[in-house]
Amino acid sequence: MSFSVSILGSSSALPTSERNLTAHLLNVNERFFLIDCGEGTQLQLRKYKAKISRLDHIFITHLHGDHTFGLPGLISTFNLLGRKKTLNIYAHPDLEHIIFQFLSFFIVQLSYPIKFHPLIFNSPQLILENGKMTVHSFPLKHRIPTCGFIFKEKPPLRKIRKELIEFYKISPKDIPDIKKGADFITEEGKCIKNEILTFEPGPAKSYAFCSDTSYTEDIISQISNVDVLYHEATFAHEDQALAQATQHSTAVEAAQIAKLANAKKLILGHFSARYKDVTHLLDQACQIFPNTMVAEDGLKIII
Amino acid sequence: MSFSVSILGSSSALPTSERNLTAHLLNVNERFFLIDCGEGTQLQLRKYKAKISRLDHIFITHLHGDHTFGLPGLISTFNLLGRKKTLNIYAHPDLEHIIFQFLSFFIVQLSYPIKFHPLIFNSPQLILENGKMTVHSFPLKHRIPTCGFIFKEKPPLRKIRKELIEFYKISPKDIPDIKKGADFITEEGKCIKNEILTFEPGPAKSYAFCSDTSYTEDIISQISNVDVLYHEATFAHEDQALAQATQHSTAVEAAQIAKLANAKKLILGHFSARYKDVTHLLDQACQIFPNTMVAEDGLKIII
Repeated sequence: MSFSVSILGSSSALPTSERNLTAHLLNVNERFFLIDCGEGTQLQLRKYKAKISRLDHIFITHLHGDHTFGLPGLISTFNLLGRKKTLNIYAHPDLEHIIFQFLSFFIVQLSYPIKFHPLIFNSPQLILENGKMTVHSFPLKHRIPTCGFIFKEKPPLRKIRKELIEFYKISPKDIPDIKKGADFITEEGKCIKNEILTFEPGPAKSYAFCSDTSYTEDIISQISNVDVLYHEATFAHEDQALAQATQHSTAVEAAQIAKLANAKKLILGHFSARYKDVTHLLDQACQIFPNTMVAEDGLKIII
Repeated sequence: MSFSVSILGSSSALPTSERNLTAHLLNVNERFFLIDCGEGTQLQLRKYKAKISRLDHIFITHLHGDHTFGLPGLISTFNLLGRKKTLNIYAHPDLEHIIFQFLSFFIVQLSYPIKFHPLIFNSPQLILENGKMTVHSFPLKHRIPTCGFIFKEKPPLRKIRKELIEFYKISPKDIPDIKKGADFITEEGKCIKNEILTFEPGPAKSYAFCSDTSYTEDIISQISNVDVLYHEATFAHEDQALAQATQHSTAVEAAQIAKLANAKKLILGHFSARYKDVTHLLDQACQIFPNTMVAEDGLKIII
């Protein structure tokens, strides 16, 4: 199953000529999940040729403009394209009123429904579950109510050895049970053990998104053992006072969280526009958590 | 005096991977004037390294999202940068309420004042005048109230021949009058005629912006003899029925307007996303008005 994330924007509140405002696009088995929607997100979706017809769920961490101002344009574009399917938006409960009030001046009638799913900000919450995956929100520590999100594949089914389907004359109707672990009885009444017919699938993957937030170990239990952790690193270690004042994190703090959470990989992002080059933020993080990389607009990470 | 326009976005309502949403940046003697502000305008201003600290006036043709959704982000960015100067916005009178209501959820207190200048939509109007230039609005013909704008340099002063300043010992205090046409009396009492001391300056330049609009000859008197006319050409000639239905123009219609107005140059833009290549729109226009060019994002035109 494909499981990847594309970085659409990696700046903090001030965009630069190299870094757009925050948005990540998660691909889970060719269904798309947008996390945050800063201004220009629909332009980045076009640039990187995302299949927006397969985007049905948008997750908004918090109601700061650099994470939300792309919503009116994206919602309008879906309307111009004649979308019919429901668009699900998971966000602070105020967002529904804000967006509909603003759009009422520009759009008479949307061609599709939007369902707002209100987040809560004092405890973790299961906000989406389907056959393939779960999504949980969990509180971050910022100036206004803010959530992180963790996307987890469900443990995949066992893989069937294709050459044995023909050999044992297994009918298509028996395959789902075999993938779940059942043995197979042949026409001659012989029992073929499941471990002969199938093999272990790849492990279930997970992706956690933590922006914007100051350093908080309260999130560790939510993101423990995550495959890829995106954690904001707005500031370098030497600017920790700024991080504290604005309730953001340093690169060192992001790495400490990744280490404590036993993450497999860390992506740093949401960089302050003051850093023309973020190599020293990467270096600072790598001293604590070596498997760290830097978010760049257009970067796609296979999880 | 510098007088140029930079195209920041050249798509119509649906952006493409090559064309952003509408915005033009006019440079008049290193003061900047933004015309329309589609989503992503602040990102384009960054990309093309515009001096946004010198941007004090924004002109909005009409209240469709593809011409306005960049305003919240640009206004927020000015705020983050600690702007103090007044920002002037010339637009439909409803925009003030729409913008302040929306931003009230995101910004507690702006660091600078915004002055909204309401446009009228039934007759031409002088909306800005300073020592260097005038700006007039004039009605276009679209589905909602829409204005075009024409920016005109004031006739420049005569240019003084620098080598004669020393020769006749002209003092700095006499130069302004000479530039305005005065003769000069030397220390010996000899009268030096102005036409000896000065020469004709370049002609006053003008730029007209007409988007969105169906074909209307009502605008001809407003834009006659303009140096550069930007006129929307959302559709090709063969799609004229679509142009009529949506109150947009074809490339042929834009060229007819340029010809009737005796414009010196025509720029086509606001292209429908259905045209991967707009060469045939250019060809159609050139048959009627040869000095036509196509808007491309990032293109700068010296007027």
